[in-house]
Formats: sequence, structure tokens, C-alpha cells
Amino acid sequence: MRYPAPLTSLITILKKLPGVGNKTAERYAFHLLDWEPKQIEELREALKATTTEIRTCDECGCFQDESGCHYCTPLRAQEGTLCVIASPRDLFSIEATGEQRGLYHVLGGPLSPLDGVGPETLNIEKLKERLAKHSIQELVIALDSTIEGDATALYLKKELKETALTISRLAFGIPMGSSLDYVDGGTLARALSSRSPF
Amino acid sequence: MRYPAPLTSLITILKKLPGVGNKTAERYAFHLLDWEPKQIEELREALKATTTEIRTCDECGCFQDESGCHYCTPLRAQEGTLCVIASPRDLFSIEATGEQRGLYHVLGGPLSPLDGVGPETLNIEKLKERLAKHSIQELVIALDSTIEGDATALYLKKELKETALTISRLAFGIPMGSSLDYVDGGTLARALSSRSPF
Repeated sequence: MRYPAPLTSLITILKKLPGVGNKTAERYAFHLLDWEPKQIEELREALKATTTEIRTCDECGCFQDESGCHYCTPLRAQEGTLCVIASPRDLFSIEATGEQRGLYHVLGGPLSPLDGVGPETLNIEKLKERLAKHSIQELVIALDSTIEGDATALYLKKELKETALTISRLAFGIPMGSSLDYVDGGTLARALSSRSPF
Repeated sequence: MRYPAPLTSLITILKKLPGVGNKTAERYAFHLLDWEPKQIEELREALKATTTEIRTCDECGCFQDESGCHYCTPLRAQEGTLCVIASPRDLFSIEATGEQRGLYHVLGGPLSPLDGVGPETLNIEKLKERLAKHSIQELVIALDSTIEGDATALYLKKELKETALTISRLAFGIPMGSSLDYVDGGTLARALSSRSPF
């Protein structure tokens, strides 16, 4: 009752994907065994392309393609807002809302001393430079609502306290469409203390 | 709000995995972006190995490694039973039970005319040959409890009716540990008609 060695290796590697345990990795591996060699080759090429072809913009840190960065345009700079995000992937969720039309800046992961991410690894000097260059009026901190996100937001606020910048952070409260029964105590407390005139 | 082209390709390919939709494929793709190039290379090698290094046994159709087939041993042939399975992966679940100590035979997928799997694609001639060669007394049909599985089992029974073989099929009934409330009507009806003395 043991798999052939190449299958075992594949399962071990697939288990590194987020939320993938033994059962799911086995399911994927057996499914991949049924793929045509051509399809496997396509997957291998796509994986290779992620390491060689995906570039990030030197200015904002977001993904860019051969036509350059779509998010460092003069039109966006005119908006006067700059949204700080932890990683390039956050941009896509924020862009999908259509609410943020200004610039972006990838900070490079929230502070997390346990994982070796200290203030020196954050892209803060570049941020300060860009804030001045584009005469930004408002900095929108769009970081996770976690201990690390909170610490990073506070650190950023402290670093930028000398500037005349308005610093804001995403609102915390009850998710849209959710019932009070299912909202945790911390969120409800925050929603109460941040209540707004109606 | 569009991903770089290599990322989009990767997401499209990952969506072919079973049970993986757009959201999950995106999650996997972004996770893969964070992997070290070395880890990506390991995954690419493991994928390549599945197409080049995994061999199936000429006799039974199960996976084998460089030391040969673990399931075509004289000890297993002595048991006098042969278990018919649809694909090599089914072997592992059956072996895990420890209830089947005889030989295996991979039939090559249940009959499925809509997917172009007709009787001629099944590995039946080889099965007949092996049944005679190893003087098998009992053939255990371990196929899915689906329309296709049923049709294949019936076809197999018809094909082998000339032989003196005992043909059995996995029992159908209530899954272990499940409550009657959650069992569907078809299963319950089958469990009643196949009831056994207690």
C-alpha cells in the first residue's frame, strides 16, 4: 500500500498549497496522472513563467507586463491619494471595488518579527519619496485587520507623523449582508464604537 | 484590474484540477508566486516525473516501481481471488482495508459510451487469460456504484458466464457510522432488500 516514488513526491509538494491536506493533494496528484503529457507540459511552462516573466514595477511594486505599469499613470497621480497594500495581490481586490482611483504602493508584507519581517524590510523610503514627488494629500492604509496589520499601520503612522498628510485606514465593522448573530464580539464592539450618523 | 498574462495562464490551468474554481485557482497561483524558484523547479520536476517515470504492470495494470509489481506475487495468486478495479488508484483504498489479499486487475475505467469508452477499450482478454492462468476461484468486482459501474459489472458477468467462477460484487448498503436520516432512499431500499441475518 505505497504509491510509486514520483507520485509520493508530487503529493508532498502539492500539500504546500494553502488549504491542501493529504486527501486533496492525493486527489490532485491522481487527477494530474490522467492529464495528457501536453497538458502537464503546459502547466510546467506556466509555472516556469511565474518565476521568469512576472515583473513588478520599480515605482509602486505592483505587477506589470511588457507594456509597463498600469497603476503608475499621471491620471492616477492626479487623484492625490495613495493606497498602501501589503502585497501585489491585494491590488486586484481593491481595484475590483472601483473605489480607489489613485496610486498604489506595495509595502512588502506586514511587520512580523517572528517571521523575520522587521521595519527595515518594508519599502518605506520609497513610499516617502513618492508621497513628496506626487504631492499626495491622503494615504489610505489598506492592510489586514490582524495584529501584524495593526502594528504595521501604527508604525507607518508614526513614521509619517512629520508630514501634513491625511492618513486613513479601511473601516472596520460588520461585513455587508451578514447577520449580527454571526458576527464575532470584537467586530461588533468595533462596529459600535465606530458607529456613524444615519 | 487584470492579472499579468503568465498568472492568468496558470490560473486557467489550475482550474482543471478537480473541485478547483476561479477563487481557489487564484489562491493557489498567488501562493505559487511566493514560492522560491527552487521549490517551483521541484514541482516542475515532480510533474515531469509523473509522465515519464510512473510505469504500470503489464500483467495487472497497477502502478509499479523499479523493483517490479508488488501485487503480482505468487503469494497473492495462491489466494485464489482476483479483484477487478477501474483504475490503479482504486487499489490503494482497497489495500488500505487489508481485506483483499489476492490479485488485482485494472479494467481501464467503467463503460461509458458517452465518453467513448466501449467494451473494446476494457482490458477483458487479459483478464480471462489471467483467470485461467492463476486458477482463480472468485472474481470480486470492485467498481463504483454508478450507472456506468453497474453496466460494466453486468457486462463482465455476461462475458464470464461460461466459466465456473464465483463472481461477487462489493456490498451496497448503509455506510458505517451514518444515521438513517441522512441516507438516501435508493441506498436504504438496497440495504433493506440485501438485509442479512443478525
